[in-house]
Amino acid sequence: MLAQRLIERKRDGGRLEAGEWRALTLAYAAGHVPDYQMAAFLMACFLRGLDREETSALTEAMLDSGDRLALADLGVARVDKHSTGGVGDKVSLVLAPLIASLGVAVPMMSGRGLGHTGGTLDKLESIPGFRTSLTLAEARTQLAAIGCVLIGQTKEIAPADRKMYALRDATATVESIPLIAASIMSKKLAEDLTGLVIDIKRGSGSFLPRLEQELELAETMIRLGADHGCPVVALLTAMDRPLGRACGNALEVEEAILTLKGEGPPDLLEVTYALGVEMLLIAGTAASPDDARRQMEKAIGTGKAAEHFQRIIEAQGGNPGVVEDPAALPQAAECELFNSPRRGFVARVEPRAIGRGIIALGGGRTKMEDRVDPSVGFVITARPGDWVEHGEPLATIFAHDRAGVESGKHALRLAIIIGDEADPPLPLVSHRVSGSGVELVPRP
Amino acid sequence: MLAQRLIERKRDGGRLEAGEWRALTLAYAAGHVPDYQMAAFLMACFLRGLDREETSALTEAMLDSGDRLALADLGVARVDKHSTGGVGDKVSLVLAPLIASLGVAVPMMSGRGLGHTGGTLDKLESIPGFRTSLTLAEARTQLAAIGCVLIGQTKEIAPADRKMYALRDATATVESIPLIAASIMSKKLAEDLTGLVIDIKRGSGSFLPRLEQELELAETMIRLGADHGCPVVALLTAMDRPLGRACGNALEVEEAILTLKGEGPPDLLEVTYALGVEMLLIAGTAASPDDARRQMEKAIGTGKAAEHFQRIIEAQGGNPGVVEDPAALPQAAECELFNSPRRGFVARVEPRAIGRGIIALGGGRTKMEDRVDPSVGFVITARPGDWVEHGEPLATIFAHDRAGVESGKHALRLAIIIGDEADPPLPLVSHRVSGSGVELVPRP
Repeated sequence: MLAQRLIERKRDGGRLEAGEWRALTLAYAAGHVPDYQMAAFLMACFLRGLDREETSALTEAMLDSGDRLALADLGVARVDKHSTGGVGDKVSLVLAPLIASLGVAVPMMSGRGLGHTGGTLDKLESIPGFRTSLTLAEARTQLAAIGCVLIGQTKEIAPADRKMYALRDATATVESIPLIAASIMSKKLAEDLTGLVIDIKRGSGSFLPRLEQELELAETMIRLGADHGCPVVALLTAMDRPLGRACGNALEVEEAILTLKGEGPPDLLEVTYALGVEMLLIAGTAASPDDARRQMEKAIGTGKAAEHFQRIIEAQGGNPGVVEDPAALPQAAECELFNSPRRGFVARVEPRAIGRGIIALGGGRTKMEDRVDPSVGFVITARPGDWVEHGEPLATIFAHDRAGVESGKHALRLAIIIGDEADPPLPLVSHRVSGSGVELVPRP
Repeated sequence: MLAQRLIERKRDGGRLEAGEWRALTLAYAAGHVPDYQMAAFLMACFLRGLDREETSALTEAMLDSGDRLALADLGVARVDKHSTGGVGDKVSLVLAPLIASLGVAVPMMSGRGLGHTGGTLDKLESIPGFRTSLTLAEARTQLAAIGCVLIGQTKEIAPADRKMYALRDATATVESIPLIAASIMSKKLAEDLTGLVIDIKRGSGSFLPRLEQELELAETMIRLGADHGCPVVALLTAMDRPLGRACGNALEVEEAILTLKGEGPPDLLEVTYALGVEMLLIAGTAASPDDARRQMEKAIGTGKAAEHFQRIIEAQGGNPGVVEDPAALPQAAECELFNSPRRGFVARVEPRAIGRGIIALGGGRTKMEDRVDPSVGFVITARPGDWVEHGEPLATIFAHDRAGVESGKHALRLAIIIGDEADPPLPLVSHRVSGSGVELVPRP
C-alpha cells in the first residue's frame, strides 16, 4: 500500500520525504516491493524528476541498504575517479596506480562494459589471475598496505542500487540525471572518500547527448557530494572519438602499462594528467596544478607508477609480469592491418561504431550475462584531422578467427570516415565544474 | 528488446503503430514481456497519453488476445449498459431483464466491487445458487433462449486486458482515460454488440473527479465504438450521493426486484429509465424517447420485466424464488436503525464514506481476493435536502454482529452530514454525449 501511494504521488508530480525514500528503497531491496511497482515508480521518477533533497535521500537510502568502508584511520586522503564511460577509456588503469604511488589512497570501485562502452573490471580481468571481487575487509587490508584497490561493486555495497539499476536497465529508465547521480554517488560514498573526481564524457560516444545534460549531471553530483561531506570536481572530456589508440580489454591494459611507463599516446596522457591534477588537488597533496603535474611526471619518469601497478596486480592475485612484458596478456589469434579505402582527411572515428565492432568481435556485451573475449579489439592509429593516403594503415584488427577479422573490417569501414575535410574534434578537456561553478578549460 | 524500444518511445512522447500495440499486448498476454517492463510502459502511457489511433489499436489488440461472442445470427439488436461504478448503483440488475423483456438481447458482462464501489457480479452472487462464470458457449445458448445473460469477464475474453488491468491496479496507472476506455471497450466489443450505453458517474463518489475528464472519457469511448462499428451513447449521472436507498449486495438485489415490480425509489427509476431509453433507441426498437419510456413502464406494470429476471436467475442456476420473496436472499443477523444526531437539513450523504462503511461491515473489498458478506449494508432513507428532526431515523444498518452495527454507526456518522443548509445535489442525469456531441439534459 505504501508503494502504491508513493507511485501515485510521484506520478502526479509530487515529492517524497526522506523517510519515504528510505522506506521504499529498503523495502524494494528486501523484496517487499515487487519489481513491477518499482518499475512504474522509476518511470514516474524519470518523467517527473527528483529535486535536490529527494536525490540526496535516495542516494543515502541506497548507501544505507548495504555496508561501507571506514577508512578515516588510514590517515591519508582517499580519492576516486569515476567516468561516465566511453570507448578506449583506460584512464582508471593509469590513474589509480599513479595517484596511489603519490601517497593518496585510491579505493576504486568500477563496473563492467555494457553496450558500446567498455568497463574497467573487464579490462582488469584480462590480466591473468586478477581478482576484482574482493570483500570489503580484503579491500580495507589492501588499501592500508598499498593505498589502492581496484574492485567491482561488491554484494555488500548498495544492494538496493544494484537491484534498482538492473531494473532500470530493463525498463528504459536509465538516462535520468538524478537517478544516475544517485546510483553513482551511493557507491562512491560507500568508499568513504575525502574527494571524488568525475570524468563526464561529451560527444557522439557519450551516453548523454547534450552539453546542458552533462553540466546538469556534474552539478547534481557536486551537490550530492556537498550534501554528504565529499567534495566533487568534474571535468568534461571528449568522447567524439576513442581515447588513445587501443580499444578492447587486453589491448587497453597494454596501452595503460605503456602510459605508466611514459610511452602512452598524447591524448590519453593529457586526459589522465588533467584528472590526476584534480585528484591531487582535492586530496590536498599538491600545492598547485603545476606541482600536481610535476609529481605525476616524476612518478611515471622514475618507474614508481608502473611499479605500483605491479604491486596492485600482485595483491589482487594477478600476474604482475604483464607490466614488464605485456605479451603475458591474452593474445588474439588473428591480427590484420586495416588500410584506408581512399586518400583524404580522417573526418571521424565514431566511438559507438567502434564499440559495436568490439561486441561483434566478442569483446563486449549486449547483455550483462555475456562473456567477453579479452584478447580482441582494435588499435586505431588514425586520428580525426589526419591526412591519409589510399592504402595507408589506419588500424590493426585483433580477432579470434578469420570471421572476426572480416567483422572487424566491416565495423571499421563504418567507424572511420575518410572525407575531403575534417570537422574540428572536441577539445580533450573542455569544462571544469566544481562547487564554485563552471569554467571553460583553455586548450593546452 | 522490442519492449525496451517501445517503452523508450512512449517515454519520450512518441507513438506506437497499430502493429506494435498488437505485438506488445500479445507478447505480454503470453508472458514474453515481464510485468516490470509492462509496468514502466503503462506509467509512460499514463503520463504521455495515447492518441485516437493508439487507443483503438490497443483496444483491438486486447480484444484479439481472446475469444468473442458471435451473435449476429440471433437476428436481434444486442445492447449492453456499462457504468463507471458507484455506490448503490443497481441499475444493471433492473435494466438487463427490463430491456431483454422488450426483445433486445442484453449480453451483459460485469465486474466485481473494489474499494468503495460495488460490483454487479457480487450483487448477483448474493442470489443463492446464481452462477456468473459461464463459458462463452453457455452464454450464447442462454442469449438465444431468453435474450439476456449476466456474466463476469471470462478467461476467454480479452485476457490481455485482464492481466494488464491487474497490473495497473497495483502500479497506480488506473486513472488514465485512454487506458480505461480501451479496457472497457475491449470487453464490450467481445460481446458483439450493435450498441452500447455508458453511465458515467459524476460527483464525489465517482472515480473521475472533474467534468472535463468525464466528458473526455465519454468521447473516447464513443470514438472507439465508432472505429469498431458499435454506436455508443453516454449519460452523465449523479454520484454525489448513493443511487436509490439500498447499499450492500443482497439489499441492492432486493431493491432492484422492487423496482422491477414498480416499487423502486424514484431516483433509481429515473436513472434506469434514462439509460433504458438510450438502449431501446440505439437498438432501434423504440420510435422515440416517449415510446421507449412507455414500453418500459408497461413491462414493469404487467410484471413482464420481473418475470424476465426470474427466467434469467433460473437459467443461471439461482433461486428464482427471490423475485417473489426477497426474504430468500441472505439476511443479516443484526439490524438497527440509525437516527439523526440533530435537527437540520441532510447536507450530504457521502458515497465514498458509505462504500468504506460497507467494507467495514465485510460487504466490500479492499483487495481482489477479499470475500464479501452479501447480507450486510445500509438502507439509507435520508436524501440530501431533506429536513430531519433530532432522533429521526436516517438509515437502517444490516450487520453480521453487534460489532458490525457499531462500525456501521461510525460509518454513517461520517457519511451523513446534517447541517443548517443543504447544497443542491447534482442533477440525476446532467449530460448526454453521442457521436453528434454533448447535450445538457433538462431536469425532469
